[in-house]
Amino acid sequence: MGTELLDAFAQEYKLLLDSELRTLVNKLNAPPIIKESMVYSLEAGGKRIRPLLLFATLDAFGVEPKQGLLAASAIEMIHTYSLIHDDLPSMDNDDLRRGKPTNHKVFGDAIAILAGDGLLTYSFEVIGKIPSEFASAETKLKLVVELAKAAGTEGMVGGQVADMLGEGQSLTLEELEYIHIHKTGKLLGFSVLAGALLADANREQLKSLSSFAHHLGLAFQIQDDILDLVGNQQLIGKPVGSDTTNDKSTYPQLLSLDGAIAALNKQINLAKEYLGMTGLNTGLLMEITELIASRDH
Amino acid sequence: MGTELLDAFAQEYKLLLDSELRTLVNKLNAPPIIKESMVYSLEAGGKRIRPLLLFATLDAFGVEPKQGLLAASAIEMIHTYSLIHDDLPSMDNDDLRRGKPTNHKVFGDAIAILAGDGLLTYSFEVIGKIPSEFASAETKLKLVVELAKAAGTEGMVGGQVADMLGEGQSLTLEELEYIHIHKTGKLLGFSVLAGALLADANREQLKSLSSFAHHLGLAFQIQDDILDLVGNQQLIGKPVGSDTTNDKSTYPQLLSLDGAIAALNKQINLAKEYLGMTGLNTGLLMEITELIASRDH
Repeated sequence: MGTELLDAFAQEYKLLLDSELRTLVNKLNAPPIIKESMVYSLEAGGKRIRPLLLFATLDAFGVEPKQGLLAASAIEMIHTYSLIHDDLPSMDNDDLRRGKPTNHKVFGDAIAILAGDGLLTYSFEVIGKIPSEFASAETKLKLVVELAKAAGTEGMVGGQVADMLGEGQSLTLEELEYIHIHKTGKLLGFSVLAGALLADANREQLKSLSSFAHHLGLAFQIQDDILDLVGNQQLIGKPVGSDTTNDKSTYPQLLSLDGAIAALNKQINLAKEYLGMTGLNTGLLMEITELIASRDH
Repeated sequence: MGTELLDAFAQEYKLLLDSELRTLVNKLNAPPIIKESMVYSLEAGGKRIRPLLLFATLDAFGVEPKQGLLAASAIEMIHTYSLIHDDLPSMDNDDLRRGKPTNHKVFGDAIAILAGDGLLTYSFEVIGKIPSEFASAETKLKLVVELAKAAGTEGMVGGQVADMLGEGQSLTLEELEYIHIHKTGKLLGFSVLAGALLADANREQLKSLSSFAHHLGLAFQIQDDILDLVGNQQLIGKPVGSDTTNDKSTYPQLLSLDGAIAALNKQINLAKEYLGMTGLNTGLLMEITELIASRDH
């Protein structure tokens, strides 16, 4: 996806994460069908961009990225639960996700709802499993609280509500940004924050990294909207232009395609600027930032 | 509901809890509709039996019950989220809950799903808000992990899955108990455990209280089944015999009504026996146990 360095890093940790996620769910003492449903969506591919951000943040601090495996698993569980619930008939009513039937198409709506609930709940237990050599009880509790804030009504859930309320309406740029900052940005931001907390970052570093993640999250979403307009259906796994047919406001719609590309570049530059302020070894984080600017799916 | 002592205690702490729950949701910086939906179901009445167990457990240790307000709020948020999701059309499809329209009948399925997600997520953040004078970071982390276990696929969610899978089938007593121990028992058990952890209980006390809660939870569910068969529709707020028409297995069905009453008494006696072993000031917990044995709604 990016340079050879990032490719190798991403592949190594994606494999470790996939294995960790499977192990975490398989060890649950629960009815097999709910575990199958959870694993089905956890394994439905995806770029694992949030875990990658966490691992790369640890790397920037010179901390062994493997120490972030459980926190990364928790984040991916939250992200996956949100996709399962968002795809439900009463929400976005999507039949396909990354080219595969959505969870409720395979397991039915009830199990899909419960698999989402199960993943969301388990994510907090998983944070508690981080070995005490890697994080104190204080740090783990902080991770729990910040994850809940990023995922809850002040974060992702709030963004999803605003997104639904905005459907079929023409939004202002401010309203569109509110949606994206909450629906996508907060969990991306937590991925960076989690790495920083596990690495015992100081206050200045936390501030710069938080601004970095904010702009990276906006860039991610602007690029998503651009891809939806001009991208290749096969690559992104959903019908091109589906946002338009769903009457959703997008950046290209509000700013024109050229304006959206300019906004993307602006956010990418701001992200890089804040990253530069951390004084850390940010090679991988820089590459992820470049990757988000140039990704084609 | 019980004696004057328990009545006064229950009333005092129910008022405090109701106010705490409202305050906790109202302070969220989130779209108003999701907060309204959360508050609607939190305020839909209910006996607050789980918070009452937590407060009474603190009282048994001689700890000021108010110190349990945030933990009790977290538990009631989890209980309320589970009711919202269980009532959905794709789950139990209930239009009424405690005589009021269910959440999705008022706010629509999408907001109901998200309100449930929001309450579940917030509950873990709320545990983090417990002042450090009342609980160390270690204790709060333990509360988070135990709450997640009680609520997740190894607990309540797993019980709900088993309950759904068992519909329309004739279950064995073991299968019926699996459902109830998980669907209802685990969160009741956590309510007692949370009180014990906040009160720094020793290992022996934790063991006795855990057995107490296990038998109390079973008694609660047996009495529920008995009430569903013989109870008064107005008092319990759902159609009498609705479990039968839904083809759900019940204790009276498996054991006859007399057998179910005998099983109830057995569980109540075991609960009292374990409570007696704690050496604590268990007056209120004993009264709650009596109340569950004799409640008429």
